[in-house]
This record gives sequence, C-alpha cells and structure tokens, in this order.
Amino acid sequence: MFETAELGRKVPKADYKKQVPLLREELLVIQQDLRKADFPVILVFAGVDGAGKGEIVNLLSEWMDPRWLVTHAYTKPSQEEAERPEYWRYWRDLPPKGRIGIFLSSWYSTPVLDRVNNHISIPEFDEKLDRIIAFEKALADDGALILKFWMHLGKSEQKKRLNSLEKDPEKKWRVTETDWHHWRLYNDFVAGAEQAIMRTSTGAAPWDIIEGGDLRYSSLAVAKAVLKSVQKHLQKRKKVKEVVAQMKAAVGPGQMTAGEEAEPTEDYWNKPVPRPGMPTIISTLKMDQILSKEDYLSKLNRYQAKLNYLHRESWKHKVSSLIVLEGWDAGGKGGAVRRSIAALDARRYQVIPFAAPTDEERAHHYLWRFWRHQGRAGRVTFFDRSWYGRVLVERVEGFARDDEWMRAFAEINDFEAQLVEHGIVLCKFWLNITPEEQLERFKSRQEIAYKRWKLTEEDWRNRDKWADYEIAVNDMVERTSTSRAPWTLVEGNDKRFARIKVLKTLCERMEKALKTLKKK
Amino acid sequence: MFETAELGRKVPKADYKKQVPLLREELLVIQQDLRKADFPVILVFAGVDGAGKGEIVNLLSEWMDPRWLVTHAYTKPSQEEAERPEYWRYWRDLPPKGRIGIFLSSWYSTPVLDRVNNHISIPEFDEKLDRIIAFEKALADDGALILKFWMHLGKSEQKKRLNSLEKDPEKKWRVTETDWHHWRLYNDFVAGAEQAIMRTSTGAAPWDIIEGGDLRYSSLAVAKAVLKSVQKHLQKRKKVKEVVAQMKAAVGPGQMTAGEEAEPTEDYWNKPVPRPGMPTIISTLKMDQILSKEDYLSKLNRYQAKLNYLHRESWKHKVSSLIVLEGWDAGGKGGAVRRSIAALDARRYQVIPFAAPTDEERAHHYLWRFWRHQGRAGRVTFFDRSWYGRVLVERVEGFARDDEWMRAFAEINDFEAQLVEHGIVLCKFWLNITPEEQLERFKSRQEIAYKRWKLTEEDWRNRDKWADYEIAVNDMVERTSTSRAPWTLVEGNDKRFARIKVLKTLCERMEKALKTLKKK
Repeated sequence: MFETAELGRKVPKADYKKQVPLLREELLVIQQDLRKADFPVILVFAGVDGAGKGEIVNLLSEWMDPRWLVTHAYTKPSQEEAERPEYWRYWRDLPPKGRIGIFLSSWYSTPVLDRVNNHISIPEFDEKLDRIIAFEKALADDGALILKFWMHLGKSEQKKRLNSLEKDPEKKWRVTETDWHHWRLYNDFVAGAEQAIMRTSTGAAPWDIIEGGDLRYSSLAVAKAVLKSVQKHLQKRKKVKEVVAQMKAAVGPGQMTAGEEAEPTEDYWNKPVPRPGMPTIISTLKMDQILSKEDYLSKLNRYQAKLNYLHRESWKHKVSSLIVLEGWDAGGKGGAVRRSIAALDARRYQVIPFAAPTDEERAHHYLWRFWRHQGRAGRVTFFDRSWYGRVLVERVEGFARDDEWMRAFAEINDFEAQLVEHGIVLCKFWLNITPEEQLERFKSRQEIAYKRWKLTEEDWRNRDKWADYEIAVNDMVERTSTSRAPWTLVEGNDKRFARIKVLKTLCERMEKALKTLKKK
Repeated sequence: MFETAELGRKVPKADYKKQVPLLREELLVIQQDLRKADFPVILVFAGVDGAGKGEIVNLLSEWMDPRWLVTHAYTKPSQEEAERPEYWRYWRDLPPKGRIGIFLSSWYSTPVLDRVNNHISIPEFDEKLDRIIAFEKALADDGALILKFWMHLGKSEQKKRLNSLEKDPEKKWRVTETDWHHWRLYNDFVAGAEQAIMRTSTGAAPWDIIEGGDLRYSSLAVAKAVLKSVQKHLQKRKKVKEVVAQMKAAVGPGQMTAGEEAEPTEDYWNKPVPRPGMPTIISTLKMDQILSKEDYLSKLNRYQAKLNYLHRESWKHKVSSLIVLEGWDAGGKGGAVRRSIAALDARRYQVIPFAAPTDEERAHHYLWRFWRHQGRAGRVTFFDRSWYGRVLVERVEGFARDDEWMRAFAEINDFEAQLVEHGIVLCKFWLNITPEEQLERFKSRQEIAYKRWKLTEEDWRNRDKWADYEIAVNDMVERTSTSRAPWTLVEGNDKRFARIKVLKTLCERMEKALKTLKKK
C-alpha cells in the first residue's frame, strides 16, 4: 500500500517558490467562497512520526487565512474529557459550516497505537474502526467535506529524518523518546496503519497517502488536494441547489416535499413502509392501567427514597444517568421529571429542554447539540425532548428531508452505543396518551392560569397528524429500541401510573448499572 | 448582624401546607413571564453549614419549572477550570436571559474560607471581595437580577442540626468531617462572613439573611423573596421601556440618540469630554517610521526564531498569551498575525475573529463571549478584534448606550486584571494608519481578487467617522492602558515597520513573563 509513497519524490526549490504564491492566492479565494458555504471542511492528518505532519499543518495555516481555520491536536484526555464518552472532545471541536478544522493525532491515534502496542485485539480494533467510519459518514452525509492525509516515510527514511531533526537545535524538541519507540515498532505500526486506511477509506472520507520525505513536495501535494477538493465540493453543492430550484420551478410552489430535494442515497431504499391503518406498537399498549391514590403515594415514597439512595451511590461511583423524555404533547413529561427530581440533590441533576436550535447549533450536525450537553461524571440529566426530534417532529413536519431522518436511525444507534459503552445509564421513555385524553388535558390547560402557556396553536395542529406521528413512533421504537438502550413505553392516561412506571424503571436501570459495576 | 436571624422563627406545618401550593403557582407564572424577559436571574446561596442551603435549593427546584432553572455547585476546580482565571467557570455557567441560575458554594466560598483559615490576609480578602463586587455590578448593570441568601444558624443550633442530620440514615451523608471542622471555626467563620456580607451587599446585589433553623420558615422566606423581586424587576424593566417609548414618540423618530434611552447612572457624570479638533494620542504618533526590506527580513528572521523559542518555553511552563488586535480597517491586523503565527506550532495557537455575536452570545453579558474563548494553558491566542468593540465601534455607531460603553472601561480593566493575575501574557495592539494610507489600501484591495472580500460598504462609511473614532481610541488608551496591560500603539503606515514592532513587543512581553516566573 505504501510503495507508491516511497519513490523519493521531490520538488526543486525554484519550482516551489514559483508555485507557492499562486497556490496561496487560490487558497485564500476558496476560503472566502467557503465562508458562505453550507458545509465545514475537516482535514485529518496522521502518519509516520517525522513525516512532516506538524510542518505541513503549520505551512497550511500560514498560507491560509488563520481566522477561518483552526487546528486541534490531542493528547491524553483531560479530566473533563475523560468524564464523557471518547468522541465528546472531537464533537466539541468540529468546525461550524464555512470553516476549516484541522485535526492532528485525532480519532485515529488511539486505535492504531492501541493495536500496535497490542492493547486491543483485532476484533476490538475493527470495532473502533467501525466507529470511525460511522462518525465520518454522519458528518459527510450532513454535507461535511472530509479529507484525510496519511504522511508516509520508509523505515530508513524515518530514522534519517529523526536523526536530522535531533541535530537541528531549532527542531530537536520535536523528537521525543516516544518517536523512537514508535520507530522501533515501525513494521507493526505500518501494518496497523494499513488496516486502518483500508477499512476507513470510504467514498465519503477518503485517505490520501502522501510521501513525506520532502516537505516541498508533500506540502504542495496536500495544499493542491485541499484546493481541488474544496472547489469540487463547492460546485457539487451548488449544482444540487440549482437542480432543486429548477425542479421546484417546474412543478410550482408547494408541490415538492422536502424529501425530494435530496439525492437518493442507499438509505432511500431502506425507508420504512408506511402502514396506514395497520396496528402500531402504540396500539398494543394497555391504556387503561391505573393506580389508586393510596397505592401511588406509598410507591412514590418508596421509589423516591430508593432513587435518592441510588443517586448518591452513582455519585460515589461516578455513574451518570441520562433520561430521555419523549411523548405526545401534554403526555406528562414535566410531571414525571418533577416526581423524579424531588428525590435528587439539585446540585447533581439538570433538566435540559430542547426546542429550536440556536444559530451555533444550526451550523453543526444535528447531533452536535446533544453531544455538547453531555454532563460530567455522576450527574443525572433529563432531556425534555431529544435527538429523537429528528425522526419524530422533523420527519412528520418535513423539516428534515427523507434521507436525513432515514439515516438518523443508524446515527442515533451509534451515538447511544457510545453513551452506553462509556457507562452512562440511558433511559428512554415514550409517554403515551390517547387522543381523547390529550383533548381533556388541553382543555384543562386552557383553564389553569399557570398552565396556559404550555398550550400553543401548534399543539392543536399536531393533533391532526396523530396517525403520522403514530407511524413515526412505531418506526422509532422498531429501529432504536436496542437491548442496551431500550425504549420504555409508558401508558400515561393515568398520571399516577405513568409517574411510578418512570420512577421504577429509572431505579431498576440505575440499580442494574451499579450492580454490574460493583461486580467488576 | 446575625442577631435577627437567631430568633427561632418557625412556620407551623398547617400554615406551610396552605401557603406552598399558592406560592408554587405564582412561581410558575412568574417563570413564564421571565422567559420572555431581557434579563437573567442569579440566585446565590451561602451560609453556615447545616442551615439548609441544599434543602432549600432542592425545594425551590422542585417548586419551579426545572426546565428554565439550573443549579451550579462548585468544589475544587477541574483541570480545565484551573487552567483559566478563577472566574472562568462562573462566567461559563451564567444563565442566559430569561432563565434562573442558582449558585451554591459559589464565588463567595473560596474567599471566606481562605480568610477563616488564615490563608489570606485582610487586605487580600478585601481585594477578593472587590472582585466580587465588580463582577456582580457588571452583571446587574447589564440587567441581571441578583439575589443573595445567607442561610444563618447560631452556633449551638448548628451543632444540634449537624447532630440530628447525622442521626438520620437518609441524611447523614450530608455531614462531613469538613462540616465539623467548620463548626469548630464557627466564630471566625461568622466574623469573615459578616465582613463579606457588609462589603458585598450592594444595591445591585443585596444580601438577605435568612434564619435557617426551620426549613418551613426559611424556604417560604426565600421563595417569597424570589417571587417579589422577580415581579418588581419585571415591572421595572417594563417601565423603563415605556418611558423610552413615550419619549421617542414625543421627540419624533430619529431624534433620540441611543444614549438617551438609558437611565443616567453614576457613570454618566464620568463621561469623557469630547474634544473635537484637539490633539489625540493618535496625533502624537510618528507615522513616517519605516523599515528597509533588508532590515525587515533580518529582523523578521530573528524575532520569529525568538518567538518560536519563547512559545516552546511557554508551553513547558504553561504560560498562555493573549494577543488583542485592534486598529483601523486595513490597518494590517491580518498581516501582523500571519508573521507571528509563522513562528508558532499550529497545534498550540488559535486565531479568533470577532464579528457579530451569535444568538447565544447575545443572551449574555457582552464580556461572556470573550470569557468563553479563553484557551487552555500554554496556548497563544490571537483575538482579531475584541471586547474593545464596546468602546470603539459600538460607542461610535451608537450600538451601545452611553451608560453601557462608559461603564465598559471599568469592566474591561477588571476583566484584564483577572487575566494578568492568572499569569496570562496580555498584549494589546492598536494598528494605526493615516486616512490617506487607508485610502491607498482600500483602492489596492479593490484590484486584487483575493483581497476584494475584505472591503465592504461599511469600510467606506466608517471613513466618514474618522474623527469620532479617533476620540474613542484616545479615551480607550487613556482609560485602559495600565501598567500590567498596556496598549502598544503601532505606527502602521509602513507594513514592515508595523509587523516587526508587533513581533518584537510580543517577544519582549513573553520573555519578561517567563523571566518573572523562573525567578519565583
């Protein structure tokens, strides 16, 4: 795989000096075009130590306008980073639309080094590569341009390079004992790298292997690749827009659904089949379950005390919980949250409502705002609505295109898998009520002063689409209720029954997680 | 001071049960009004251990809608927090407009405990209290409603309380050895607290001393105080708006300057006197200084090598630098940044451009967005434009009211003092050019494709206000060039001269900081 990057390619100084000013100009122009574009650019640099990753990134940063460009390098996770899932720090650093983010020693570093040092097995390695593929696919599907450069150097070349760096008093700081350690592992490293490159070189995020022996050659090669790819991507996005505009003009206003604007992707064929009139998972719920007041109060007391204890244990063992609440309008999300927080210490929980995204959030992948709200260790976080908005309201109302909400199922499963693997107790509740019960609740909201704000025009409109929502909920449960992150469907016509079911489930899940932890 | 909080006030259970539901309703209503308001609510809870801080906060959180409320408690700073100035974490957690933030063991905790344990002297304690006053004043001036509750308990009461908590298996976890340690220091603690309360009980952010012996009494007292204060504050803000609207209607559109909308504050009398036609600090600059190409290249080489070395040393010693660039349009900020970053490792610097704030930023104090971009230890950060926008463009264009930009001088000095005290090397550059030179540069920008984007209609318009800007710059230097955070005025008609002056100054400041550090 790397033979073509050991050919000794060089660029003469005179050539280089002629090419650089022109290239810089083009890079500056493209950066300005990019600022208005609807996608970010993600450049990943990895490779053999001494192959010039750092130098090339420095040059690129110098050539381009540093204001719309930012470089991120990673070492050992900080305490705050270690308290969240591994990818939290990468999500945190993703550039918004219109900007370039350069990632050094990024998400590739740990898997490859862990494999080379035999800390993980081959299947574990493959699993980590799958995570990378899913991560990059999610970003690329959202429009991001991802370019990955593998800086290569032959084994003897690497030795020469490290030696020469060490001799230069200005540069010897770049060479550390780790670099020499890596050099001794060269063959293993290259084998691991080859596997990583093979597996993760997807159409959406291809690798480019760059010969790193001559900085003039490699920097020009990288800069030109960046330039061409950005130009191409800008044109592609423009083309798509034009075609959509033409189609719209042809069919007249309001005749196209949002879904038709998208290019069909493989997900398209994967679209759930609408089944109007067919039973859904919701129709199987026994909605007449109730709890007497007496029974309720005694259970409330019991589970609140239990939850209080479990939360203190979780705090001690740094186990976080994330409770996702979805449900029909007036389904009782708020009431369930209140009964739960009554048992918790206010310093250690947080309730986060999700409505319209802010403009910073809009400039990122839709999952970004849920990643950014991942709390530190030992906390309980309630999400009042969540990433499931993508496959519920955004699907039904057409705010997301078909291909967008369809691929969301896989993105969500991958996201949740990361939360669960990190040890977070993830509880997902669907608070279900019948349309009749909802109507009753809407009416009573209109009558109570401090509840009136809860009722909007939109709530009334949403009732008309009950059947569509029901299908969306059914598909959501079908596709995202996994054994590690199951949905709990709550029969919510009786508020007392619903609240106890939520509390009880939460207790069970936390208890199980703590038991598993203590067994280890 | 605390005698009135040792009276043994209690609320009978029956009374309490009658009052709570009504109070809760009112709190929910007020929270909804608040959501549309243009200010945040900051509730601080401090006081004697065992006086029920935690319990009251839990109750409040349960009574109110947890979605528009968040509680923050602080212990030892995390690694990421410790790498920034002390107040970074408090700024980070400030609630946006329309929300309530509850702060437990907040900015009062460290100063009071440090004083009680004799880790700091009385003057040092006073200095820390001054910092608190300035912090709260800045927030209150910006509209925030700040309420501070001191939960009190007599010495013997405290002992009783701790004992009884320890006996309750559900609550004994609340009592730690630290609590008993504090109890033994009771007299010192109360003396320190008294001093803190006296000094920091300002009109903008008053303390309320609450007797903590009976949770029913104290929770009702706090909840009512919150309710009344929010109601009053809402009315006050509404009134101000109405008066302004009436005045506007009376004088006709466009007749009022932004400044007149504000209530005059003490800052008003502190307004700099405009001196049209008088010499300003800018007019004293020797704008004809130049550097030959040869001289420039040799100095560029020298200072870049030096800067590279200094940055590596800074990285090693975890010294951060923050470089603020302000100046006329086309003044050469970008060029100066480029020549500096060419010497730096892209993984360890960042260039942050500040243009219009995002909507999240707009929902906070104007300094919030500069706090949030404080980098981790050892980094070099360039701010392309900065918090000085408040006293430059916002002043001249009338985007900020007179009282807003006038008090900004003090706010900025306090902010910068915190950066410098934390050990950050703060360099502020004003890149000065003459109007003639600017015109030349504008013309040449129009001719070069990749520079054309830099030139906007606004740039041309700004030229008309040159004299106003010059006065604003003069006032800015007069009021914010301190010995620890001096302005460097750069004679920028000759780009070569300017770039070397920036590089040289940066090197000198970093060198000095490292020397001081090594001496310690």
